[in-house]
Amino acid sequence: MTEVYVLGHNHPDTDAIGSAMSLSYLLNEIYNFKAIPVISQKPDIETRYVLDYFKIPTPAVVRTVANKQIILVDHNEIAQSLADFKNSEVLAIIDHHKLEIETNKPIYLLSEPVGATATIIYFKYKELGISIPAKIAGLMLSAIISDTLLLKGPTTTEKDCVAYQDLADISGVADVDRYGTEMLKAGAVINNNTPEDFINGDVKEYFIQGKRIRIAQVYVTDMAPVLEKITDIKNEMNKHISKNYCDLFMFVMTDILKINSMIVVLGDERAIVEQAFSTKLAHDMCYQPGVVSRKKQIIPLLIKAFLAK
Amino acid sequence: MTEVYVLGHNHPDTDAIGSAMSLSYLLNEIYNFKAIPVISQKPDIETRYVLDYFKIPTPAVVRTVANKQIILVDHNEIAQSLADFKNSEVLAIIDHHKLEIETNKPIYLLSEPVGATATIIYFKYKELGISIPAKIAGLMLSAIISDTLLLKGPTTTEKDCVAYQDLADISGVADVDRYGTEMLKAGAVINNNTPEDFINGDVKEYFIQGKRIRIAQVYVTDMAPVLEKITDIKNEMNKHISKNYCDLFMFVMTDILKINSMIVVLGDERAIVEQAFSTKLAHDMCYQPGVVSRKKQIIPLLIKAFLAK
Repeated sequence: MTEVYVLGHNHPDTDAIGSAMSLSYLLNEIYNFKAIPVISQKPDIETRYVLDYFKIPTPAVVRTVANKQIILVDHNEIAQSLADFKNSEVLAIIDHHKLEIETNKPIYLLSEPVGATATIIYFKYKELGISIPAKIAGLMLSAIISDTLLLKGPTTTEKDCVAYQDLADISGVADVDRYGTEMLKAGAVINNNTPEDFINGDVKEYFIQGKRIRIAQVYVTDMAPVLEKITDIKNEMNKHISKNYCDLFMFVMTDILKINSMIVVLGDERAIVEQAFSTKLAHDMCYQPGVVSRKKQIIPLLIKAFLAK
Repeated sequence: MTEVYVLGHNHPDTDAIGSAMSLSYLLNEIYNFKAIPVISQKPDIETRYVLDYFKIPTPAVVRTVANKQIILVDHNEIAQSLADFKNSEVLAIIDHHKLEIETNKPIYLLSEPVGATATIIYFKYKELGISIPAKIAGLMLSAIISDTLLLKGPTTTEKDCVAYQDLADISGVADVDRYGTEMLKAGAVINNNTPEDFINGDVKEYFIQGKRIRIAQVYVTDMAPVLEKITDIKNEMNKHISKNYCDLFMFVMTDILKINSMIVVLGDERAIVEQAFSTKLAHDMCYQPGVVSRKKQIIPLLIKAFLAK
């Protein structure tokens, strides 16, 4: 049987992994090919917590997709996928991020500005009348909780709320609010993190107007333990900048309970951040109340500022 | 009430116009804004035939979409839209072409590799449970007939056939096959066309590997009257090339009954066509049996040939 890889983005989070697995299940229910969820790196602590909770096996980690047929979930940009993405055949894409895509033929692409890719997949299940197993529902629920910070984040839409409610019922999780808080806290445990862990964990790269932008993000319930290590973290960021070609490196510490962020900004293009957020950096940092989303609250402002240059 | 333009591609065909009008109707049924179908040029003879047949008023022709909220149908590339597209806010895209798109935030995009954009919109009506008025059904039916050459073209999918059948019923057209043939023939009437008409009618531009490609297509039931004027047509093409920056200009004469094409190829990059189709040009022309679709049978081969250079 033909194998099709369903691939989440690099540095996969719970939505990337949950979407890859839930879409694979859906595809295997309706198509004659074998959909296999794959990721390019191991799951992080939060997703580890989710997979253990629902007793779901970890998807395979692959280093290449060359000459494979693939479906991308939760991303569409080359910069966020395996480097040999270009040598594969992309059959379809389901995503909720900004778009930067070029194909040489028509493909299936569904992109919606909702909180989680899992929400889009949930509505595909509904549309196609496929029933969702409890474990898969738990995984999709966790993906929504993760990406919307328990429906409190600014990217949350009505569709996410509908999906969340229904998936909570199907999953059989008794107290979803409590489960979600525990899950987010599990992901926010950063006591043993080294400065390298912080800047290489949940990190995404973007190319904007020819500039290479790197944004690492860490979710915490208390910023103090991270701020304590901030000098070492900045040293690691500067090391990365001098070793690699990188015009702007942002490290975003997000308080998932208070819904705000402290952002460290380094690199030759750091002035663009001051312009984007109408702020002044102090000790290479700025505080941004209400800001928790890279895709909705950081990237669009950066692009606007770069275009206005 | 907020106005949203629903815009078809430049040199609009029946699918571009039918999609703009049918999506606008759908949106106005469910949303609180006013969706207005617009086009950037007047309808061609085929669409004129359709609008007259179903007694549907012509959509407004606009020259600018600057500072407007817009929804793109039947295209997604800047090269095929109004030049000030970049100064508008693109809310959503529904299309069935190859993708070349960059946004600065997440948007709604639904792309499917089916024969007509109208087919995708038909399934949206179904999904949302909105009933389709007979005239709108006739318009969507005509769009499918036009883009799939009465379901005979190579881009035709099962979904197009399903939509076609249902829309035929709803539209109340008694003999759809006859209507479709008449419609295609009406569009293929080219007796009074000047050489300028031929190369400026159904024309699309693409940027591939930094090269500007222009492909004009004309649908005929008999190639002889066009071939008679071929010297003048080539002169017009060469005039365009020398006046404008254009690396490759193809003029595709497609016989809609025999399902084949004769292609005139001019411009500095003409050798790429020989490579793409493994053919030799004779008198700047090549004959391609079975080839009728720019998006499925010409563009992918050109991209492959350019990448192999």
